[in-house]
Amino acid sequence: MYICLSKHTPTMNRFEINILGCGSATPSPRHNPSAQIVNFRDNLFMIDCGEGAQKMIRRMGLNFQRINHIFISHMHGDHCLGLPGLLSTLSLHERTGRVTIHLPEEGVDIMKRIMAFFCRESTFEIVFEPVGGDGGRVFESDSLTIDAFPLYHRVPCYGYIFREKPGLRHLKGDMARFHEVPVSKIAAIKAGEDFIKPTGEVIPNAMLTTDPDPARSYAYCSDTVMDKRVAEAVRGVELLYHEATYDSSLGDKARERGHSTAADAAEIARMAGAKALLIGHYSKRYSSVELLLREAREVFENTSAADEGMKIVL
Amino acid sequence: MYICLSKHTPTMNRFEINILGCGSATPSPRHNPSAQIVNFRDNLFMIDCGEGAQKMIRRMGLNFQRINHIFISHMHGDHCLGLPGLLSTLSLHERTGRVTIHLPEEGVDIMKRIMAFFCRESTFEIVFEPVGGDGGRVFESDSLTIDAFPLYHRVPCYGYIFREKPGLRHLKGDMARFHEVPVSKIAAIKAGEDFIKPTGEVIPNAMLTTDPDPARSYAYCSDTVMDKRVAEAVRGVELLYHEATYDSSLGDKARERGHSTAADAAEIARMAGAKALLIGHYSKRYSSVELLLREAREVFENTSAADEGMKIVL
Repeated sequence: MYICLSKHTPTMNRFEINILGCGSATPSPRHNPSAQIVNFRDNLFMIDCGEGAQKMIRRMGLNFQRINHIFISHMHGDHCLGLPGLLSTLSLHERTGRVTIHLPEEGVDIMKRIMAFFCRESTFEIVFEPVGGDGGRVFESDSLTIDAFPLYHRVPCYGYIFREKPGLRHLKGDMARFHEVPVSKIAAIKAGEDFIKPTGEVIPNAMLTTDPDPARSYAYCSDTVMDKRVAEAVRGVELLYHEATYDSSLGDKARERGHSTAADAAEIARMAGAKALLIGHYSKRYSSVELLLREAREVFENTSAADEGMKIVL
Repeated sequence: MYICLSKHTPTMNRFEINILGCGSATPSPRHNPSAQIVNFRDNLFMIDCGEGAQKMIRRMGLNFQRINHIFISHMHGDHCLGLPGLLSTLSLHERTGRVTIHLPEEGVDIMKRIMAFFCRESTFEIVFEPVGGDGGRVFESDSLTIDAFPLYHRVPCYGYIFREKPGLRHLKGDMARFHEVPVSKIAAIKAGEDFIKPTGEVIPNAMLTTDPDPARSYAYCSDTVMDKRVAEAVRGVELLYHEATYDSSLGDKARERGHSTAADAAEIARMAGAKALLIGHYSKRYSSVELLLREAREVFENTSAADEGMKIVL
């Protein structure tokens, strides 16, 4: 996993995180409120949609039309008030089909009312899927699952974890030719089966294939106090985005407000065994994120700081 | 009247228009949706509040705390969806007192619901003042009036005109000394009265004073088709902001969508006898406003093009 600012990545297998906003409740000239777009094989999944998100979508050259699912962490304005504007814009672009908005159940009524008023002439279907209780599976396709899990904030709040399904094993072309594997058997062998020759001889799968690419994963955790249950929910994740609103000197304020310090975020990454940590949701008091980054790296070295316009390639 | 990009203007008598957003419904990387702040003697009056307005307020160094009145032209998202976020931010800054939102009556219910949900911990009072019918006086102080008047769009829509009240006449110091005017009479003479000497001799006011500074005025007209009733409503205004969504080749589209071309805007300025015209609300199709500006200037020469971050000093 690496952070890559170029756009030259293989389209077919894309798994990219686009940072549209990584500020906290009060926007600053430096940061937008929370919003991200996960590009998984050119399907765009939005996570949170603070004010200004649609402008960043344009600026980052992302295609509005490919957003089919939007996941809202919680019903504070800085995580969802960009939604009515974004959906209005989709309508002005004559978007068709369906957009599903997954959001804490307490937000469904007000969002329905807002959409009914501001998106009355919508050209597409807007579906609301409430997330409640302990969360659970919110999306599944042949190649991807997305699960919601509780965060611990001042109002009901959910994190989301994206897990690529394990891919097929890679066929060793020379071995397949040597053992005269017919085309009709290749799919089964890539799925892990042994090959039985017409003579009855069994060629073990391990002789014919190599391991699939490691399945990639991404977890989004904002807003939350540090809680080890979050580490359990994201155990083994490749990239963890975790809020880091404050520095360590403001630990009491963080707990009081249902937020984390940068060191808290790093501690969760360490406990979870994440490969990399991305911090964000910075309080507007910080004119630079250097302090937060330094404090996080003392606990978990492979930490990066999110910034608007950043694209992370998994 | 001149357009001034410096901040060095006399505070006491300030009358400035700050452009926070002058794009149309679909925001572009170049333009924000509609929002302006009129600074009248350091009281800030907001007109429209599209998404992203609060970020521009910070960027332009305007003081959130001085906004007491917000005027919404109509209930399309690009003119009011920045409001919940702005009011949330005011609360996070522990704003006290009262903010009055003047808006078309059809918008009161939904805005109340949105505020009740997203600003439930508001530290200040939010008052909604419906604007309906033919509009009328929406604000009056010792030195300023603000009136709403109908615009002609696809939904109920209002323009707003700010008129400074005429100031006091200027005393001619040398003449006042020559005629031995006592201090106790000065206020009355500045208000236009003649001076009667103890001898009974009458000194006409015109000998003692010169005319007051001309009263300044500003009108905001967005969104609307070209309609001569708009010109009547803003007759004699010093600076007219008028939407100019399209160029002349798209006149039919403008009328169909309830919008104006740049030439339409200029025609209204000419009919109204405005001193200057400021165009805005550009369709996102224009990567430069040169064409719109040229077409407007063919009809009304003293035209400028609004841009984000621009401050116009009256």
